[in-house]
Amino acid sequence: MPVTLPDIRAAARRIAGGIYESPCPDSIPLSEITGCRIVCKLDNLQRTGSFKERGARNALLRLPPAQRKRGVIAASAGNHALGLAYHGQLLGIPVTVVMPDYAPLIKITTCRRLGARVVVRGDDFTAARAEADALVASEGLAYIHGFDAPDIIAGQGTVALEMMKQVPDLDAILCPIGGGGLIAGVAVAVKALKPKIKVIGVESTHTGNFAAALRAGKPVTVKRRATLADGLAPLTVGANSFALARDRVDEVVSVGEEWIALAILRLLELEKTVVEGSAAVPLAALMAGKVPALRGRRVGLILSGGNIDPSVLSRVIQKGLVHDGRLTRFTATVTDRPGGLAALARVIADGGASIQDIVHERTFSGSDVFAVQAVCTVETRDHAHVRALHRALKRAGFPLRVRL
Amino acid sequence: MPVTLPDIRAAARRIAGGIYESPCPDSIPLSEITGCRIVCKLDNLQRTGSFKERGARNALLRLPPAQRKRGVIAASAGNHALGLAYHGQLLGIPVTVVMPDYAPLIKITTCRRLGARVVVRGDDFTAARAEADALVASEGLAYIHGFDAPDIIAGQGTVALEMMKQVPDLDAILCPIGGGGLIAGVAVAVKALKPKIKVIGVESTHTGNFAAALRAGKPVTVKRRATLADGLAPLTVGANSFALARDRVDEVVSVGEEWIALAILRLLELEKTVVEGSAAVPLAALMAGKVPALRGRRVGLILSGGNIDPSVLSRVIQKGLVHDGRLTRFTATVTDRPGGLAALARVIADGGASIQDIVHERTFSGSDVFAVQAVCTVETRDHAHVRALHRALKRAGFPLRVRL
Repeated sequence: MPVTLPDIRAAARRIAGGIYESPCPDSIPLSEITGCRIVCKLDNLQRTGSFKERGARNALLRLPPAQRKRGVIAASAGNHALGLAYHGQLLGIPVTVVMPDYAPLIKITTCRRLGARVVVRGDDFTAARAEADALVASEGLAYIHGFDAPDIIAGQGTVALEMMKQVPDLDAILCPIGGGGLIAGVAVAVKALKPKIKVIGVESTHTGNFAAALRAGKPVTVKRRATLADGLAPLTVGANSFALARDRVDEVVSVGEEWIALAILRLLELEKTVVEGSAAVPLAALMAGKVPALRGRRVGLILSGGNIDPSVLSRVIQKGLVHDGRLTRFTATVTDRPGGLAALARVIADGGASIQDIVHERTFSGSDVFAVQAVCTVETRDHAHVRALHRALKRAGFPLRVRL
Repeated sequence: MPVTLPDIRAAARRIAGGIYESPCPDSIPLSEITGCRIVCKLDNLQRTGSFKERGARNALLRLPPAQRKRGVIAASAGNHALGLAYHGQLLGIPVTVVMPDYAPLIKITTCRRLGARVVVRGDDFTAARAEADALVASEGLAYIHGFDAPDIIAGQGTVALEMMKQVPDLDAILCPIGGGGLIAGVAVAVKALKPKIKVIGVESTHTGNFAAALRAGKPVTVKRRATLADGLAPLTVGANSFALARDRVDEVVSVGEEWIALAILRLLELEKTVVEGSAAVPLAALMAGKVPALRGRRVGLILSGGNIDPSVLSRVIQKGLVHDGRLTRFTATVTDRPGGLAALARVIADGGASIQDIVHERTFSGSDVFAVQAVCTVETRDHAHVRALHRALKRAGFPLRVRL
């Protein structure tokens, strides 16, 4: 089932007014750190926090009247479920979502609040999908696939139409690849309208179903690995998506998890915007130097979603601070007599660093019973500051062990 | 020195093209939690992360040619410095910024990278200001006040012109009050153009110079208190700002620090946007029920800046999770024999909670030498889940102490 530019244009007309035409501003700070001229398509600002609403609304509006009454169903642990629930409610179409056991409670609660019937069933996606298929059979619901249905692909392609209109001189679009629906829609729109714009897909080194399919010449199933980019988790690229995208995508790159974490932090700090891991992979690819040919070019990043768990975000920030040398940890040997710790704290303070935490380790601290190991976590300015602090502590007579 | 609507309109024409006309989207999730119809003016997306660029650029463009050559100076630890540095560089006007010792290194570095000469001097703002005055005298620089210069106030007022254009049916604008320049500009624009729109100023309970000035009938100096909203820290409202705003502002409310923290988290989670404390006070005021008359009305929140330290943000998230019952801590008494901890961990896991951290406390855990206190930090879903977990642990025979 091909999807064509006219399909995507029709989808754009169909969903207009129901989908937020998200802004696509220039980002000077991101341009500075990447050496490209960056614009960010802020689809994380959609009502339910992701681009998935585009396809969901388009697919819902394409239902025949009788099916609109009976309703739709999908298995999804994430953004597709949210998008369907929200637009189903807006359009008065009953939506059932089957979520696997491990779905974050916040998404279950939100889907219910948006008016969907939520069935929690199965300890993996396959089991949830089987349950959904049973309900399709017993209740006459229409199954709406999260990424491989042509109406979904056409809906996702509308994001590229908007970007080409908002930024007429784009040289490239960097697009995350999960199930493939987004990049398929984007590639069809771009290559039909402005084929000179490069379409570059980005995966995590822990995902990679599209690259695997390119190597095999057809969709294959990759091994499951934990990833910060959980939106890229489908183990097999969609068949329709792959057929549409394989010859239209100029390049596919993959990027390490540590770069994804750092890209989330940079978007937070520099672009003041919150993204989930899968939406950070385009920036991560540039930061990791994976697409050197884009240097100096006008590059659009699709910030596809913002639904990151706040506790995960908090951990990402902490790890990012360590990476930047703004949070550091070392173990200093201190005399266990009165004043030992005071002297250590004084050297740290004089060095302009701020103590976040000190833990004493006595029992496992070696043979000298009058020495104690102080494990210090301190806030610093950068790596140079960390090195200066180490030197100052050694000069003051505190043996140091860096890296626990 | 009065500032009038024509001044603000002139400022808008003057800075057009140099300042990002930031979007002002509807926020359905924030509308749901506040009961108002919320739009957010995303001025945290300005290049240097705050609205301060508006006034800075306007003031720079108003300089006579000879002064543009000699350059300008300001004392500032924050966003005014960044705005001046950036637009000074764009316009080829030399900028000197005097920053007090406690200025965050990241802002010092950024100002330098933006081309400003940065002088770090003085352990408070007064000392930095004195240093700046000395350079005004010795080098013939023009001092640009961060909030009370009429050109600054006129520039800040442009944010209100944009909002009234972007959202024609606004009923109210909620605006943070720091030095008063922003609310003065906003109030002048609104009351001249659409006087029915309420202008409501928001302070932290730890700041409050405007409310104090209203009570005294003139600007007075308030006591310094630590606040998450460090952008609201000026101890005295500007005289020009106060004269312009006092009769034009409909209401001034103040909001507690805990609400500011929670509002930062809600903007992150629901609006996918990063704000500093001072930019969160408008939402905080609504969440705290400080402006009940706005229920059901169309309310614009000025998200004035996004320059929050990531480590502060990380702490805000953690505290917010505790507030929401998504992170909880309790102390359970466990037998110090093999298997004691395993049994405890089993009950927690069966209750659907995830252990983040367990610390054993032996020496200070009471008189029973065979009992140990396990201080557990666990991730939960909400307060009801926390209570259910407590019940399950008690049923399983673990005496609990909640709240350390």
